Amino acid sequence: MTPIKIALIGAGSSYTPELADGLIHSYAELPVDEVAFVDTDAERLQILAALTRRMFAKADIPTRVSTTQDRRAAIAGSMFICTLVRVGGMDARILDERIPLKYGIIGQETTGPGGFAKALRTIPVMVEIAQDVAEVAPDAWIINYTNPSGLITEAVTSYTGARIVGLCSGPFGWTNSVLRAMKVSPARANVDWVGLNHLGWITRVLVDGQDRTDDAIEAAIASGWNIEGDLMRAIRAIPCSYLAYYYHRERALERARTSPQTRGEQVKAIEADLMRTYADPALSEKPALLRQRGGGGYSDVATAAMLAVYHNRGDRQVVNTPSRGAISGLPENAVAEIPCTVDRAGAHPIVIGELPLAVRGLVFAVKSYEQITARAALSGDYRTALQALLAHPLVPSYDVAAPLLDELLAAHRAYLPRFAERH
Amino acid sequence: MTPIKIALIGAGSSYTPELADGLIHSYAELPVDEVAFVDTDAERLQILAALTRRMFAKADIPTRVSTTQDRRAAIAGSMFICTLVRVGGMDARILDERIPLKYGIIGQETTGPGGFAKALRTIPVMVEIAQDVAEVAPDAWIINYTNPSGLITEAVTSYTGARIVGLCSGPFGWTNSVLRAMKVSPARANVDWVGLNHLGWITRVLVDGQDRTDDAIEAAIASGWNIEGDLMRAIRAIPCSYLAYYYHRERALERARTSPQTRGEQVKAIEADLMRTYADPALSEKPALLRQRGGGGYSDVATAAMLAVYHNRGDRQVVNTPSRGAISGLPENAVAEIPCTVDRAGAHPIVIGELPLAVRGLVFAVKSYEQITARAALSGDYRTALQALLAHPLVPSYDVAAPLLDELLAAHRAYLPRFAERH
Amino acid sequence: MTPIKIALIGAGSSYTPELADGLIHSYAELPVDEVAFVDTDAERLQILAALTRRMFAKADIPTRVSTTQDRRAAIAGSMFICTLVRVGGMDARILDERIPLKYGIIGQETTGPGGFAKALRTIPVMVEIAQDVAEVAPDAWIINYTNPSGLITEAVTSYTGARIVGLCSGPFGWTNSVLRAMKVSPARANVDWVGLNHLGWITRVLVDGQDRTDDAIEAAIASGWNIEGDLMRAIRAIPCSYLAYYYHRERALERARTSPQTRGEQVKAIEADLMRTYADPALSEKPALLRQRGGGGYSDVATAAMLAVYHNRGDRQVVNTPSRGAISGLPENAVAEIPCTVDRAGAHPIVIGELPLAVRGLVFAVKSYEQITARAALSGDYRTALQALLAHPLVPSYDVAAPLLDELLAAHRAYLPRFAERH
Amino acid sequence: MTPIKIALIGAGSSYTPELADGLIHSYAELPVDEVAFVDTDAERLQILAALTRRMFAKADIPTRVSTTQDRRAAIAGSMFICTLVRVGGMDARILDERIPLKYGIIGQETTGPGGFAKALRTIPVMVEIAQDVAEVAPDAWIINYTNPSGLITEAVTSYTGARIVGLCSGPFGWTNSVLRAMKVSPARANVDWVGLNHLGWITRVLVDGQDRTDDAIEAAIASGWNIEGDLMRAIRAIPCSYLAYYYHRERALERARTSPQTRGEQVKAIEADLMRTYADPALSEKPALLRQRGGGGYSDVATAAMLAVYHNRGDRQVVNTPSRGAISGLPENAVAEIPCTVDRAGAHPIVIGELPLAVRGLVFAVKSYEQITARAALSGDYRTALQALLAHPLVPSYDVAAPLLDELLAAHRAYLPRFAERH
Repeated sequence: MTPIKIALIGAGSSYTPELADGLIHSYAELPVDEVAFVDTDAERLQILAALTRRMFAKADIPTRVSTTQDRRAAIAGSMFICTLVRVGGMDARILDERIPLKYGIIGQETTGPGGFAKALRTIPVMVEIAQDVAEVAPDAWIINYTNPSGLITEAVTSYTGARIVGLCSGPFGWTNSVLRAMKVSPARANVDWVGLNHLGWITRVLVDGQDRTDDAIEAAIASGWNIEGDLMRAIRAIPCSYLAYYYHRERALERARTSPQTRGEQVKAIEADLMRTYADPALSEKPALLRQRGGGGYSDVATAAMLAVYHNRGDRQVVNTPSRGAISGLPENAVAEIPCTVDRAGAHPIVIGELPLAVRGLVFAVKSYEQITARAALSGDYRTALQALLAHPLVPSYDVAAPLLDELLAAHRAYLPRFAERH
Repeated sequence: MTPIKIALIGAGSSYTPELADGLIHSYAELPVDEVAFVDTDAERLQILAALTRRMFAKADIPTRVSTTQDRRAAIAGSMFICTLVRVGGMDARILDERIPLKYGIIGQETTGPGGFAKALRTIPVMVEIAQDVAEVAPDAWIINYTNPSGLITEAVTSYTGARIVGLCSGPFGWTNSVLRAMKVSPARANVDWVGLNHLGWITRVLVDGQDRTDDAIEAAIASGWNIEGDLMRAIRAIPCSYLAYYYHRERALERARTSPQTRGEQVKAIEADLMRTYADPALSEKPALLRQRGGGGYSDVATAAMLAVYHNRGDRQVVNTPSRGAISGLPENAVAEIPCTVDRAGAHPIVIGELPLAVRGLVFAVKSYEQITARAALSGDYRTALQALLAHPLVPSYDVAAPLLDELLAAHRAYLPRFAERH
Repeated sequence: MTPIKIALIGAGSSYTPELADGLIHSYAELPVDEVAFVDTDAERLQILAALTRRMFAKADIPTRVSTTQDRRAAIAGSMFICTLVRVGGMDARILDERIPLKYGIIGQETTGPGGFAKALRTIPVMVEIAQDVAEVAPDAWIINYTNPSGLITEAVTSYTGARIVGLCSGPFGWTNSVLRAMKVSPARANVDWVGLNHLGWITRVLVDGQDRTDDAIEAAIASGWNIEGDLMRAIRAIPCSYLAYYYHRERALERARTSPQTRGEQVKAIEADLMRTYADPALSEKPALLRQRGGGGYSDVATAAMLAVYHNRGDRQVVNTPSRGAISGLPENAVAEIPCTVDRAGAHPIVIGELPLAVRGLVFAVKSYEQITARAALSGDYRTALQALLAHPLVPSYDVAAPLLDELLAAHRAYLPRFAERH
Repeated sequence: MTPIKIALIGAGSSYTPELADGLIHSYAELPVDEVAFVDTDAERLQILAALTRRMFAKADIPTRVSTTQDRRAAIAGSMFICTLVRVGGMDARILDERIPLKYGIIGQETTGPGGFAKALRTIPVMVEIAQDVAEVAPDAWIINYTNPSGLITEAVTSYTGARIVGLCSGPFGWTNSVLRAMKVSPARANVDWVGLNHLGWITRVLVDGQDRTDDAIEAAIASGWNIEGDLMRAIRAIPCSYLAYYYHRERALERARTSPQTRGEQVKAIEADLMRTYADPALSEKPALLRQRGGGGYSDVATAAMLAVYHNRGDRQVVNTPSRGAISGLPENAVAEIPCTVDRAGAHPIVIGELPLAVRGLVFAVKSYEQITARAALSGDYRTALQALLAHPLVPSYDVAAPLLDELLAAHRAYLPRFAERH
């Protein structure tokens, strides 16, 4: 049996104990021999490695934790490369959240101009990692949790030969929320999920083979879904929570403007606490505080994907992958977040066909924005970047896009070397 | 030789003298025997019929002008049915222009919520006309100039068996403006035009076989195009003037808000003058005042289409027609405004392929909006109408769409019987 | 819990004990309350019902066996309708095998003109059954094993609203044969299967995630596959055994011509024996003789499909179902035999994309033949039937097709009422 | 005004006087300054150049005729490169005609295994010419008349960046034959032509806008079309004459087998006569004997294409060009012989949509064969060549394909250097 090695790129992430916890709980099925921790922040790398070792020891699993700053060494011999990087750190995120607000647009880590700026910073780094994987461990799978996860997967599959599955805990979580609200066990249900990362909808719910979509909508409404009930009734679909940034953009903007802190500012404070906690040699399990940070789903979807690949399971998971014709009309190489079977050969999209008209336009528009953004991030071309922002449905006009782009590029100059060179 | 009869539905339009003038000038090639005038407004019908008779007499052509309020009688035996109707008249248009402004959205006859309201009023009427044509003159061609022309064509081709070519003078006009600015004769140029009605772009200009797209953009800028030059450079395309409602929406909104009159209000005044002028028995030609009304291109494109059909010419014209795969990914039945060959068998799209990413998202989004709108107009279903407004890129959110829809439906209640019945 | 009822149309089939055996073995997972036996042959119906009752009794499962000649009564209340009918019986099959031989074409039950004649006889009957299902039990699934299975599924999905899964034991069997020859357990393998019913290929074999297609071909050769090794090396795929009728048609023809009996003649004799055996009141299990009849896989794939639907499993099965874009370029409604996930909502194709060039042409050609054949069978139109035969790759020319068609139509006149009426 | 230069590759062809005649007749519209003659056969090159000079002189046009064996020099500065080459000469053609007969398959220059062998010999040469054009005259258009014309165009567009229009006089000729038989002038007709080179059908004929397809079929039958009338009635289409090799293959084979000479053998004799005639200094016009050689249409379609490009006409011509989605389901880069508008920017396919089922299968099958053949010709890979022959609908089986391939490769070894190297 080949020993199982996992490379963890961005191991200094505050989420790492989630993944460690997941590896502990799935050890019987996925007996990992070594996790190679890599991070550009040496201090956080050591803190997280030490904590993980204590967690593994307490759980009595023999998985080794190694640390390195040599990314290619970590990748070599790995079966999975888990990627969770944040280029520019939490300070860059806060800029992503703050700057668009000045232009009357919500600031958000993945949606809108904030997600655009994050993509510009992150795609070149993730593509370099993927090129390393393609060279050093061509059979390995990148298990990506770096945001914007769909766009990262788009860039990696379009511009490298690496294998990648793009994850988000959302589809699993939202689907379960709806079924819980309906008091229906997942085993009795068939839920159609369509769309892109952070731009997905539940478009049909069958229970025991009967169409119960309308009941599902009412249950979501009763459960306090963050989208108006009449809207869901009109489109006959349940949007994921991020779609409130589109459907209720004025409310979201108002909330952001009146909020004393952005989410990034909150998280920055939580993370400082977390790091102190993690560094405590007495700690040998996932601390309760981590729940405030969010991301509990990370471990679930990452281990589910690794188990499906490792055991060649072919079970159904909603992941980000090239859609290859699964959605009628979408370019075949376009990455979507769609139901797939996942096995040793990767993620295989299950046919969706024509999207409902109520969601089709937004999906195609955002997908065009994403494809232009990947091109802009890698080329460092100013005009392409402007084209991308113009294509974003949340950016109202050129008159907003142009100065907003200039401010974003200036603010993040240090993390956008490709633009610096050429602009 | 079959005698040529044309039915003119909406003959009381102030544009009718344009068409009459066109028929005079093309008489040698298209020797029309009879034009059957139909209008629900009996007074305007008689004024325009009398003027047209005087014009034909002065031009010394033998074309007869008949009048009737029996639409099917007019259609019977016709080779062409020219349609130019305005359900609700100029007062309804003014509401279309005024109401959206309250919600911070431009009010416009064809673009945005104004065009949406016009579509709801007009589609059922045009579909009824088309059903008459399909029954009474199944081989005849509807030459449609009723706005929103693309959406009308979409509805007629999706819901009836009638033959229709949807016209707009824009593509011809904008293309010529650019070539004039470049000082290039059309014979030397190959201009790629893509998109939907009032949502089109010039995406490539060849001169003598050489790509001169960048020069074309600079020439458009120098000629005072209504779109920012840097935007055109970024998307490497020349948008049609209606796209300023998208790319410069704040400017357009500001202009509308500060303008003492909407275009509809101006036109209403002009039309009153025009009708007085038309009624003057001394007038026997197209009056100069008509130029202020606009629409000179109507006659050009309508006679071009009729000539192409009548003479089986197969020449290239940009018209609205089901795209049938000409644009990759667009549903095959979706109507687009694209280059076609036009002959006795109708309009045949010339293959375009993948749209440039810079325009693809907007085209697909607006096309989805249009397809939902056609469905809403014919079903009179409130939720479908809400779905349509939500799908429109100029409508920012549900929180704007819902009250805006309510106000539009209430304001136009008299012209929306299908909604009255069901809502 | 809803009681589980299965209708078994064509219950007088000699294969029925296979299915009975399958129901016994899967009773713990699929506790069937009633199997309603239907057959037009009253005698065989009673023999098989009695045997099945004895089998269920011996196995100590409480499943009831009812018999009726009222098809709709049997269908009403059923969760599954298993269909296995043979219009014209074994005598018609023998004609299907004998007649084409005179024209130099192999005679075969499903492939070539024989399968064509079978389709003409069978499709109208299966479509009538499906219409009953659509009316009487619209939520039920037809589990079809009637041949030609792909063509039946094509006709039922194109011309009725019934739910159907078209089965064949081949893909499962051939895949396992190859893996056995490679000495690889299915759990370690990912096998790409593409094509149509009785026209499929294994186009890729991964073992532990590594491409071992070439090894799979060599293993198939070594195992005595019925296709030449150099051919498989040239197309880099392993064809299913029925493809020998295409790739080695002269050999197949020679074998048929020199064989004293057709397969149908053999089976007729076996079936006579089987019926005598079945009628023996002492028999209460599947007799050994049935193995000679073949079709052991029937029970496996039928119970697998029913279990997947009943338990909402979503596991991967190769079935015949509308491909909905899973194969690039194939019309969306075209039925193909492809990997799907099967659950309570039916069979969901997994995306395949572009077929390898080496197999694409034959798949598209046979699919066109099938679509024309379905149309011919239901219309009873002679010209359409001729069009179908002309489209079949095994029919060399019009000069063969025309007299062959005439002879087939004449020979089967009694079972082709739609042609009788119109021709 | 740029001087017009044409390079004529394969100028020693016996067809060259046809083209010379065409240039004379179209001189007013296409005032060519120079035709650069290139041929590997120096003697024929001089004979044809001298004759062409005499023809131009007699016609009193100033077009110069230059000769060279430096292909790139001829191409440099050219606006059009007319290609008409025959690799291996008439002797190779005769082998293409003779060898397949031994295997019970018609031998023919473009259809079947003969066309396959011709393609293997010719594609590498034409691709090299095209690479020269792409480098030396990237804006020039290759006007190809080399057979198999569709396959050549497929290879050139798939593997080089050169511009090419693939011509055949067939579609124009067959269409006119049908209209003549109907006594209908082309101006009143709309004729749908679909398919591939030498594999086309007339699928609809409108006259004055009315469907007269059935009348067209009867007229073709009455005119002595080489396809059975009942077949045309069954498929409701008029096949091009080459389709007799498919629909009546036994007749074609019998004719070939009983014919004392193949067409190549006849042509070889005619050509010897022609060359003697051409060499006669007294000859200064196209000799009557050339009519026996055939190919009168060459000049018509070549000058039509050049005029359309030169004058940016955009008129409708049926040419071989990448279909780009014009035929539903066909790969976008697949070359088809379809109606296009031809202008300065090249050939632009007019949308066809779904092919009629009666012809779809054969088109897709032959297109797959062509795409494999292009790959085989350029790679020199034996297995790919075998794959190609197996994919050809006229090759019945592997058992025929394998020895036939071996004999073809051996017979043409001298002209298949890529196979020699690798096999």
